[in-house]
Amino acid sequence: METIAVYPGSFDPVTNGHIDLIQRSAALFDKVIVAILRNSGKTPLFSVEERREMLESAVGEIGNVSVTDFSGLLVDFAERSGASVIIRGIRAISDYEYELQMALINRRLSSRVETVFMLPAETYSFLSSKLVKEIASYGGAISGLVPEEVERRLRGRFNPGI
Amino acid sequence: METIAVYPGSFDPVTNGHIDLIQRSAALFDKVIVAILRNSGKTPLFSVEERREMLESAVGEIGNVSVTDFSGLLVDFAERSGASVIIRGIRAISDYEYELQMALINRRLSSRVETVFMLPAETYSFLSSKLVKEIASYGGAISGLVPEEVERRLRGRFNPGI
Amino acid sequence: METIAVYPGSFDPVTNGHIDLIQRSAALFDKVIVAILRNSGKTPLFSVEERREMLESAVGEIGNVSVTDFSGLLVDFAERSGASVIIRGIRAISDYEYELQMALINRRLSSRVETVFMLPAETYSFLSSKLVKEIASYGGAISGLVPEEVERRLRGRFNPGI
Amino acid sequence: METIAVYPGSFDPVTNGHIDLIQRSAALFDKVIVAILRNSGKTPLFSVEERREMLESAVGEIGNVSVTDFSGLLVDFAERSGASVIIRGIRAISDYEYELQMALINRRLSSRVETVFMLPAETYSFLSSKLVKEIASYGGAISGLVPEEVERRLRGRFNPGI
Amino acid sequence: METIAVYPGSFDPVTNGHIDLIQRSAALFDKVIVAILRNSGKTPLFSVEERREMLESAVGEIGNVSVTDFSGLLVDFAERSGASVIIRGIRAISDYEYELQMALINRRLSSRVETVFMLPAETYSFLSSKLVKEIASYGGAISGLVPEEVERRLRGRFNPGI
Amino acid sequence: METIAVYPGSFDPVTNGHIDLIQRSAALFDKVIVAILRNSGKTPLFSVEERREMLESAVGEIGNVSVTDFSGLLVDFAERSGASVIIRGIRAISDYEYELQMALINRRLSSRVETVFMLPAETYSFLSSKLVKEIASYGGAISGLVPEEVERRLRGRFNPGI
Repeated sequence: METIAVYPGSFDPVTNGHIDLIQRSAALFDKVIVAILRNSGKTPLFSVEERREMLESAVGEIGNVSVTDFSGLLVDFAERSGASVIIRGIRAISDYEYELQMALINRRLSSRVETVFMLPAETYSFLSSKLVKEIASYGGAISGLVPEEVERRLRGRFNPGI
Repeated sequence: METIAVYPGSFDPVTNGHIDLIQRSAALFDKVIVAILRNSGKTPLFSVEERREMLESAVGEIGNVSVTDFSGLLVDFAERSGASVIIRGIRAISDYEYELQMALINRRLSSRVETVFMLPAETYSFLSSKLVKEIASYGGAISGLVPEEVERRLRGRFNPGI
Repeated sequence: METIAVYPGSFDPVTNGHIDLIQRSAALFDKVIVAILRNSGKTPLFSVEERREMLESAVGEIGNVSVTDFSGLLVDFAERSGASVIIRGIRAISDYEYELQMALINRRLSSRVETVFMLPAETYSFLSSKLVKEIASYGGAISGLVPEEVERRLRGRFNPGI
Repeated sequence: METIAVYPGSFDPVTNGHIDLIQRSAALFDKVIVAILRNSGKTPLFSVEERREMLESAVGEIGNVSVTDFSGLLVDFAERSGASVIIRGIRAISDYEYELQMALINRRLSSRVETVFMLPAETYSFLSSKLVKEIASYGGAISGLVPEEVERRLRGRFNPGI
Repeated sequence: METIAVYPGSFDPVTNGHIDLIQRSAALFDKVIVAILRNSGKTPLFSVEERREMLESAVGEIGNVSVTDFSGLLVDFAERSGASVIIRGIRAISDYEYELQMALINRRLSSRVETVFMLPAETYSFLSSKLVKEIASYGGAISGLVPEEVERRLRGRFNPGI
Repeated sequence: METIAVYPGSFDPVTNGHIDLIQRSAALFDKVIVAILRNSGKTPLFSVEERREMLESAVGEIGNVSVTDFSGLLVDFAERSGASVIIRGIRAISDYEYELQMALINRRLSSRVETVFMLPAETYSFLSSKLVKEIASYGGAISGLVPEEVERRLRGRFNPGI
């Protein structure tokens, strides 16, 4: 049995919490596809291309992990990719409820794709892309929260003169 | 990569919610070991042997599923079995919190075993072995909640004369 | 349409939070049956007869409220009583989850009985029979938490000499 | 006692979860008024008139149910309508907290109107108008989630050429 | 040991729930700094200057409480002010999760500042600035929810002719 | 203002999570009294005397921390000790609800004592005395979860021959 898993997200930008989860997933499934959602509704800080570069710089060396992007329904993308698993990280309760709701609707949309939930290391339990951007925008220290490449780019965005 | 998963529980008795989860797990992992916890602390309704028989009657025909029992630390059992995955079903929030706590402690006890969470079909979201026993003890209808073999045995326990 | 509602509980003893909910229910439904659960599993502080006396002393004068007791499945009692509504108070999240689970199982056991949830006044949001008994057992002040008759009986239990 | 209940919402559009709750309410209360909130703050997909047509097409044949719309404070509308009950469906915990907060504030604004909470069938536990619109916008299958009339109109919006 | 505490918020406008918490904090810590967040992202109803005036009118007479405003990272403001405590009120679970996340990130940003959580009186558990503004905008009664000075100003905003 | 805080618990045995919280509290309040609850209802693993020795060995050197034990109502003990603060650690949601309920009842029993909630380091978020005892009873590794003295004593209890 070859099991392919999709790990979807905005990754704007990728954090160490995301990377922790990608590493854990890569140890359990034959292939892990990190899939950046192209969402026209929100204004991202980084372009899809930049987000992909940062992800590839961070997890490109893990043999069974690939990075791509998608739009439309997640289950359609999963089916097209031959994936039978959607991976979602869970941290807080509010997360969990939204995630549960999405898992049930996705199960309804496709019975061939199953959602599994995994826990990031508790060191990253408070971490989100949104928080990282907010801290960086005020000049706060973000080392240890994101890969160095992401830290460099965030500084470039918020402190172009330094 | 061969991924072996353990699905631990008391299964006193197995419900259709458990069976739903075993079927979903068997579609994702190479082998699924259903592991009955021998817990000297609680007084079960059915013996470990009976619980194993009911489980085998219900899922014995799924090719990559086996049924066994264990005592001691779950991660020790998982490691001895060559398993890298612990499967847990999540329904309610209180479930989830306890499960999250156990997943973190198990990760600390062994970094080689990862807990993944899956959702049973929402039809079974209210279902637990405890509720089934309580309903059966009052003569309430439990068909559709447990496999027929379990229904037959529960009736035998609570209504021996019928 | 005549709608009869059942408000089940242990009422060991009745608190001002219960009474608040009975009053609110009596304003919405044609008849409200307060139903004391005879539960052989737990050791109550007060007998069913004493609990009934305290309830009747507290709500007996509300015209469309009656007090009784039952054992067995709640939905069977509701159907026998001609009730189409089960009333449950909700306070905390953990309450709510258990209540939701029971409501779903009860709906499965009888499609003729619907559970509705109501909020007690927030002054009573922290209140439970268990807490009242614990405070009374240490000689703490419980006036305002329970009807006077209950306060008197609790003092009699824990401070027979006074 | 004639008890009139208001079931307020945006209904943009009505889902099968809403309809399930309207049917359950109509079995408990003498009259149920489905009340569409005219909220100038959000941009709806369907106009108030269209939402009312879809609701009437779905529940217009239930004898004691009527459909209308309102603006301003919900309790003021309820009082003007002679209603003593506000019906709210609860699914997730986050729902529940917001609902609880609104119920307490509404109780403060009017002591003559009580909020009662009811559960939709668990098949619809994941369902919301927002999710339905999102799935429809990607061309996903929504049959079984909304009445046929709503399905037809959603397709008209997102796939006008088909 | 002199312990200085910061109580941060938007206070747009201050409610009786905030004031309750400020009074409780003032009884525990040597100095309490009420700190209005200047957040360029949201459009407030009242200017920072107006919010400060309303706060000073409400709590200015408590000897060890002062009112100020800040922008940037909260922990930077706390350190500059010599504060070792951040006070946050908790009401609902969703609150609590966000608060917990912020407390962990703030602890990471500064190990010299600790977040402590306190409960407002349960009478105010449903209260928020947003709800107060919404009720006032519909002409609903807000007396008892905010100080008189705030009530007067809200009426001035939403009913300038009266 | 001299603020005295009580940190109550069973401490059977003290964990590194408790110690983390005691250290954080000692930095904020003038005096911290660690108060072991003598609860006749549960059968502890360690006697009150042993629990006190382990606590004193772990936190006895912090200048403003003392260790004692109490029975009866917590607020009565706090008042007798001149304390105006009860410190409680919060981790999970279920914790939080129980804690909130206790804080409200304690506030009702004494308006002179306020409960404040603090977060242990997230490394200890999964940690409880109960879990530590369970792991130790199966021979699992508990170093890093409890002070060395506690580890030594737990080994003595569960592996007297080693």
